[in-house]
Amino acid sequence: MEVPRLRLCLAIVMLLCTPLAAEDARPVLDTAHSPKAVLHGVPVSAVTLGDGFWAPRRKVNVEVSLPTLLELFEQKGILDNFRRISGKRDVPRRGPLFTDSDVYKWLEAVAFTLQSGPRPELRASAEAVIDDIVAAQEPSGYLNTYYSRENLAERHQNMRGGHELYCLGHMLQAGIAWQRATGERKLLDSGIRMVEYLLSNFGPGKKPIFTGHPEFELALVELYRTTADRRYLDFAGYLLGGDPRNHVAPRDITYLFSGKPFYTRTRLEGHAVRAMYASSGAADYYLETGDEHYFRTLQTLWQDMVRHKMYLTGGVGSRASGEAFGEPYELPNQQAYTESCAAIGNIFWNWRMLQATAAAPYMDELERALYNGANSGLSLGGNLYCYRNPLELVGNPEDKIRNPWYDTTCCPPNLQRLLGSLPGYFYSTSKDGLYVHLYHNSELRWHLEDGSPLLVAQSTRYPWDGAVELKVEPAKPREFTLFLRIPAWARKAEISVNGEPVPGVRAGAYFALRRAWKPADRVLLRLDVTPRFTAANPRVRENLGKVAVERGPLVYCMEGIDQPSGVAMFDWSLDAAGKFESEWRSNLLGGIMLLRHKAVAAATPSATEALYRPFTPAPEKGKPGVITLIPYYTFANREPSPMQVWIPYR
Amino acid sequence: MEVPRLRLCLAIVMLLCTPLAAEDARPVLDTAHSPKAVLHGVPVSAVTLGDGFWAPRRKVNVEVSLPTLLELFEQKGILDNFRRISGKRDVPRRGPLFTDSDVYKWLEAVAFTLQSGPRPELRASAEAVIDDIVAAQEPSGYLNTYYSRENLAERHQNMRGGHELYCLGHMLQAGIAWQRATGERKLLDSGIRMVEYLLSNFGPGKKPIFTGHPEFELALVELYRTTADRRYLDFAGYLLGGDPRNHVAPRDITYLFSGKPFYTRTRLEGHAVRAMYASSGAADYYLETGDEHYFRTLQTLWQDMVRHKMYLTGGVGSRASGEAFGEPYELPNQQAYTESCAAIGNIFWNWRMLQATAAAPYMDELERALYNGANSGLSLGGNLYCYRNPLELVGNPEDKIRNPWYDTTCCPPNLQRLLGSLPGYFYSTSKDGLYVHLYHNSELRWHLEDGSPLLVAQSTRYPWDGAVELKVEPAKPREFTLFLRIPAWARKAEISVNGEPVPGVRAGAYFALRRAWKPADRVLLRLDVTPRFTAANPRVRENLGKVAVERGPLVYCMEGIDQPSGVAMFDWSLDAAGKFESEWRSNLLGGIMLLRHKAVAAATPSATEALYRPFTPAPEKGKPGVITLIPYYTFANREPSPMQVWIPYR
Repeated sequence: MEVPRLRLCLAIVMLLCTPLAAEDARPVLDTAHSPKAVLHGVPVSAVTLGDGFWAPRRKVNVEVSLPTLLELFEQKGILDNFRRISGKRDVPRRGPLFTDSDVYKWLEAVAFTLQSGPRPELRASAEAVIDDIVAAQEPSGYLNTYYSRENLAERHQNMRGGHELYCLGHMLQAGIAWQRATGERKLLDSGIRMVEYLLSNFGPGKKPIFTGHPEFELALVELYRTTADRRYLDFAGYLLGGDPRNHVAPRDITYLFSGKPFYTRTRLEGHAVRAMYASSGAADYYLETGDEHYFRTLQTLWQDMVRHKMYLTGGVGSRASGEAFGEPYELPNQQAYTESCAAIGNIFWNWRMLQATAAAPYMDELERALYNGANSGLSLGGNLYCYRNPLELVGNPEDKIRNPWYDTTCCPPNLQRLLGSLPGYFYSTSKDGLYVHLYHNSELRWHLEDGSPLLVAQSTRYPWDGAVELKVEPAKPREFTLFLRIPAWARKAEISVNGEPVPGVRAGAYFALRRAWKPADRVLLRLDVTPRFTAANPRVRENLGKVAVERGPLVYCMEGIDQPSGVAMFDWSLDAAGKFESEWRSNLLGGIMLLRHKAVAAATPSATEALYRPFTPAPEKGKPGVITLIPYYTFANREPSPMQVWIPYR
Repeated sequence: MEVPRLRLCLAIVMLLCTPLAAEDARPVLDTAHSPKAVLHGVPVSAVTLGDGFWAPRRKVNVEVSLPTLLELFEQKGILDNFRRISGKRDVPRRGPLFTDSDVYKWLEAVAFTLQSGPRPELRASAEAVIDDIVAAQEPSGYLNTYYSRENLAERHQNMRGGHELYCLGHMLQAGIAWQRATGERKLLDSGIRMVEYLLSNFGPGKKPIFTGHPEFELALVELYRTTADRRYLDFAGYLLGGDPRNHVAPRDITYLFSGKPFYTRTRLEGHAVRAMYASSGAADYYLETGDEHYFRTLQTLWQDMVRHKMYLTGGVGSRASGEAFGEPYELPNQQAYTESCAAIGNIFWNWRMLQATAAAPYMDELERALYNGANSGLSLGGNLYCYRNPLELVGNPEDKIRNPWYDTTCCPPNLQRLLGSLPGYFYSTSKDGLYVHLYHNSELRWHLEDGSPLLVAQSTRYPWDGAVELKVEPAKPREFTLFLRIPAWARKAEISVNGEPVPGVRAGAYFALRRAWKPADRVLLRLDVTPRFTAANPRVRENLGKVAVERGPLVYCMEGIDQPSGVAMFDWSLDAAGKFESEWRSNLLGGIMLLRHKAVAAATPSATEALYRPFTPAPEKGKPGVITLIPYYTFANREPSPMQVWIPYR
């Protein structure tokens, strides 16, 4: 091949490999011009994830989850709901009143996926869905398949449970992501028309309104970031501030996490997903306005979450009743509600707090929820989803914890959009340099905030292994700071640059490596991922006398199926004096590091004992044995089996 | 005063003191002619309770609870619901669709109360209520204030949640109790007319029906016992057997505890009150028919309850969601649902099982629920009620656990009828003699099954003290067996007759004292009520590392308000090596035996600790102290305070 032809070919290849025109390549959260953003994200397209932990998860998401959910939307009539409004189908409306939002979340997931590379079939399917959606829009701009035709009279009548603004919020997020992925504005413009319809009817001096399910707020702020139209930010402020004309009942103010000024809240309560989305929206609003009332409230609520109301997995929402937060320390394991959407909301909120502060604890909690309480939501096969992600199961086969479909099918597309957008959570830039938040085989191709191109390549088996090699390749030598996140869980962490150890590395912080970086610089990070026991605050009543096992960012659990036969899983106690054995099992559960530990089986099987008996202080001598642990996110991927995260110890 | 006039006066006084004509004096459950009843109750009127534990509870019931609930019925329009049907009031219907049943339960409570002595004002109020009820009956016999007028079309359309048969069941029970109390049949005849309306429209060969909330079944069996009309028993059998033409969905069969043959059930599940009432009705049906399929199922379900699904307090129903039973060992303390009605249903069921078997374990469980999980439902002042009776409270002042009124106000009148009928649970007769089930200062004036009159007087401070003196006074010397219940909780029990110790006394059984009893015989029973620690099966995940404190039949608890200041209640651990101190406190909580015990306060207050931390096996040394315990039934009768039954120990 001649050199000029080779060059041409290379140019074409490079063009094909660059999925987006530069002006569309925006981060998941576009804080580039946010006054209070210390950090600024990088586009999904800027990070290519290689082999490793997330590869099979993202592969099934694209190849199984997204197409099968679209099929289910068809089967369940969720897409027909749009087509009947446009007159394309003459069928009754199906599903609960918020089904539109599920389609929007699916579209957003597709949009993120397209940012990681072309998927022509998927894109074509999504474009057809967008056409169906936009065709259902009224000339007024109104668009919601429930509050139309036979339910027209209900429009804007049920602000508490109606999900009208919630659906619109997801429509805007999908429209924004789609535009960022493809440059196409059709869905975004349609969403803007609905926003304009709302703004002309509701707000200060017009009719009062509030979001019974927060979500619209964060979408409005991102719309403001996308369009620079300040009215959208102001409307988010109006909604977050609460219009006193709404007269929301106290129990609704609690449950809805809406209906009173956000900055007057003092604790997390009510519906967990609503609280997470409201807090995310409020954080977005703070990033743009710098209103300190919001920031103080956000910090108070965040402390309430991580000190009192969050599971070890990053899941939140303790109660089935109301899908709600409970009292401080009310964290039941078996009855944990821990909706996948709530763990995802936790991720969204922490991401926003991180942009505002660059403080590592937010990323620690994000990582916790990402690897555990959210990750568990999608089955390894990609076609089953958890709505609840409990920390204990009795193993009742009727207890179907993973299902292909829920009438309220909010979690499946939420998991899909999280996995689709995942590369966008790996890095941020700041005026000082580059922040590395997450570790995985990957390549970042982006630039510093001064515009100088930069490539960072990670080589690692993280989270299975704690060693991460980062190749830092500025286009030309350049001084900047590389901020490496040292997770709070790391009991030991070491960094070397080009083979030279760097002192002062400390867990639970970003370690700042400032130097004149030059092409081919190598950073080696070593995090201690030795398995560890974690105890809960004694106020968590159910975890007294128990420990959890963690390894790196991964929470582990016991499943009955892996334990020695002849002893019920719940009759094992960990022998706290023992050591862990780790074994890589490539053929088990998609490839996992299995853990084993010494344990003691109860002398008398609990099943044969009475429910209540006179107390005897000295525990009976038990039978020694070895128990097996698997990462929590893989639970319930085989046959029905008891499972527990918190394990009694002796 | 001349002697003949004195005699006349005495005769009049005696007549006034005999509340009932003999033919009306029937037990709470009239098993006199039940083929499978080993035991036969005595009428409420046969037992006069004297001073002691139950006296203030029954006093407030009559003087506060019954009149204030009637007032609330007026305020809330619950009585007007009847008056609007009869045309006496032109008001909208108010309250949920089952409000009629609350009025019926209140009437039943009044009827039981009248069996303990005349209460002319209360009786007059109740008669006026009965007049209003009967005036609302349609010529067809149909009577339900919800399924009339604007809701006529819903009649018999919502068998799952409609509560039509449930309301009728309570109407029949009220009518029967009223007739037994007063000899008046007006309410009973009205109920029978509704039953006849049903029988002419529904059943085999007619339209299918089922009870979406079991309750009608037990009422029908008692109606059969009252009228000897076999069709009522058969209809109960039809309902318990399940009509396959109803096509009840599996999840409803679980939740409703209805809709499939009762005798095919293998576990307690679904709505706890429904399950308790269904089981009570099935036991009633067994008592009359001897159908062994029912008995075997009842035994299986009862074992499932006491081995897996019952709180230490006798409360049942672990989940707020569905007010339902959970999995085996799923017994959360703070989130315990434990509706007062479910504990009462537990009492009803055990009472029926006891009649069929004379087996002490049923009475042990009845006593457990009576003194604890049901007793806690009524405040000491008599005007506040628990719907839930949890075993732990964080002390949030917004958590109003005791309230004067609930929209679903089923528990208040249920507690009232239980307390009203209480004397009827003290004794039974068998062909061999007399069973003594419960202990309290009291007089029984009844007769053996051969008709010979018998007086038994108990003198005791039970449950505060374990000594019970029984004066056995047959009208003339007579050989029979006195069966004394030795509670399972008694670690030591002694009996003497006329001062002579009797050997072989054993806990958890009825001790048979067969002898020729003569007037003025004295039996002394000594039960060891030394406070004790109780442990739960380790499968009850939340109670691991904890103990409960019991004293006699009473479960104790800690309330924050009683504990040394400066240490959060939840930071105390019992020092398992210590001893209890008991102190009688006549001015506290209506008079209670207070307990104190050595304990250790956590070295670091839990409130200052992180939610999760690396595990360290050796517990920190704490600060020694003394904690105070009160009987569980008195919880939340002072200011809002944390409370716990299950206490960590060291």
